[in-house]
Amino acid sequence: MLAPGLIALDWGTSSLRAYLLASDGTVLESRAENWGIMHVPDNDFASAFEQVTRPWRARWPELKAIASGMIGSAQGWVQVPYCACPAGIEELAAALVSVRDGALHIVPGIARFGDAPNMMRGEESQIAGALTLHPELAARSLLVLPGTHSKWVRVEEGRVCDFDTFMTGELFALLREYSILGRPARDAANAPEPEEMEEAFTRGVLVARDAGRGVAKELFSVRALVLAGRLSPAASLEYLSGLLIGDEVRCALSGMNRAGPMALIGEAALCGRYRSALRLLDVENTEVIEGAAPSGLWHIARRAGLVAEPA
Amino acid sequence: MLAPGLIALDWGTSSLRAYLLASDGTVLESRAENWGIMHVPDNDFASAFEQVTRPWRARWPELKAIASGMIGSAQGWVQVPYCACPAGIEELAAALVSVRDGALHIVPGIARFGDAPNMMRGEESQIAGALTLHPELAARSLLVLPGTHSKWVRVEEGRVCDFDTFMTGELFALLREYSILGRPARDAANAPEPEEMEEAFTRGVLVARDAGRGVAKELFSVRALVLAGRLSPAASLEYLSGLLIGDEVRCALSGMNRAGPMALIGEAALCGRYRSALRLLDVENTEVIEGAAPSGLWHIARRAGLVAEPA
Repeated sequence: MLAPGLIALDWGTSSLRAYLLASDGTVLESRAENWGIMHVPDNDFASAFEQVTRPWRARWPELKAIASGMIGSAQGWVQVPYCACPAGIEELAAALVSVRDGALHIVPGIARFGDAPNMMRGEESQIAGALTLHPELAARSLLVLPGTHSKWVRVEEGRVCDFDTFMTGELFALLREYSILGRPARDAANAPEPEEMEEAFTRGVLVARDAGRGVAKELFSVRALVLAGRLSPAASLEYLSGLLIGDEVRCALSGMNRAGPMALIGEAALCGRYRSALRLLDVENTEVIEGAAPSGLWHIARRAGLVAEPA
Repeated sequence: MLAPGLIALDWGTSSLRAYLLASDGTVLESRAENWGIMHVPDNDFASAFEQVTRPWRARWPELKAIASGMIGSAQGWVQVPYCACPAGIEELAAALVSVRDGALHIVPGIARFGDAPNMMRGEESQIAGALTLHPELAARSLLVLPGTHSKWVRVEEGRVCDFDTFMTGELFALLREYSILGRPARDAANAPEPEEMEEAFTRGVLVARDAGRGVAKELFSVRALVLAGRLSPAASLEYLSGLLIGDEVRCALSGMNRAGPMALIGEAALCGRYRSALRLLDVENTEVIEGAAPSGLWHIARRAGLVAEPA
């Protein structure tokens, strides 16, 4: 095994992922806990950190650790001030805040200030990773990070220059769980066929694509189509997913500078949905980048001098 | 007291309102229960009907009763087929379905069929009432019924010709209760001053007015503005309300034929919000019509020959 050089934590709202990285950034081992910052036992971040990293720190006590995500928010371990746009690896590495006598360094988020403020925490490290994994994106690109709060990010000269946030993932989950739109699928006896699901998703994307003023008027169609017998209850959530993702993609594409290549960063299945929606809006062959977080954390840590060199 | 001529029920998803009407349509008495169709004890609609109308039917056993709303849906007492657009009092009265040996007649909803189906249940009776209370709206008008599922309705020659549905009320309630956007207000110690609330609402409407592609990109601003210290947690839900109502009004106005006068139908406080939003989008002095449901039910019942004439 390569010599370990760093412990990296992706510590968000709902989960905690820990990586043991080699001194060249290779992932040697990883662990996951359901200890997102809202679910840390007794709200004791120090103890959660000790537990998840104990086997590694016991064996290699000199290893430094770095973390990014909501752990650096007001609800996290310590509130780390945002870096202002434009910001990249250099700015992030210079603004780390440490806890536990320097055992753990927390990466700041990135914010746009002014009249229309916006902020991210965690995505900045995924972006740093994606830009080092794919250097062709660094000069100028448009990066999309689908999720609970999707980010559309303009990159120039290796830095985040500007970005927008869409609450698509949170909205979908709320509508599925609690709204009248989710009821037919909750009551449906059969899961839909894969082909029917894809068809319903595509149909939702196309409705959103053609709704130039936004989907406010189209949301209720999820229910109306089911009541009218024109959409199966089992496939109705796929149609809703297409409607919401289609609306995000249409709105984002028409509002952003699209110069340079585009890429999707995140989990493969969700990125696949965005890739399909982008294709229906005439953006072909968008690259999908997975596993960017540990790579970004390693590059930020190396820039900050935290990576142990092999003996 | 005028002689009673009809019992009218406005029986929706979350509540049941019962009216004793005179033979000329005047409201003599009214009662309200929390027995919306989702909350009827033991799902026993007949027993709920008996209980809420017992004092009136005991005294005037010959009185007929009429009901509209979700009581005529698949989840209600009996599923009453929709009338197709265009439909008005005549079509509704001809399509009543009765239960309890003709003791209770249920008004159908109105539907638009075809590729983009849409439906209403309950609003058709409010519209019938509004058009008889304000005959100047009958020839041609645009009626707005704010609510859980707001309706924007085109009326021609006394009939509902076309309409759209916006899930604004349901969306606001979900975001307030369950989303990250509701958290600052849930945690806020102080209620905002009325002036601050109005200012935040107006601000939300103006952002939505200027978001020509829809508010998908703006929703997260509720959180970002609070985090950046540019919106008080206590007023943040007023801003969200303005954002969602503003988006509905912008989207509806730009998509509908606006020939003829406009009016708002519904509860005064909610209609007031829509009136303010309409004003910010340059639609001045929209009339607000309250208490339209019993009046509409009376007119439909009279057309169907159900109203007892005074002895």
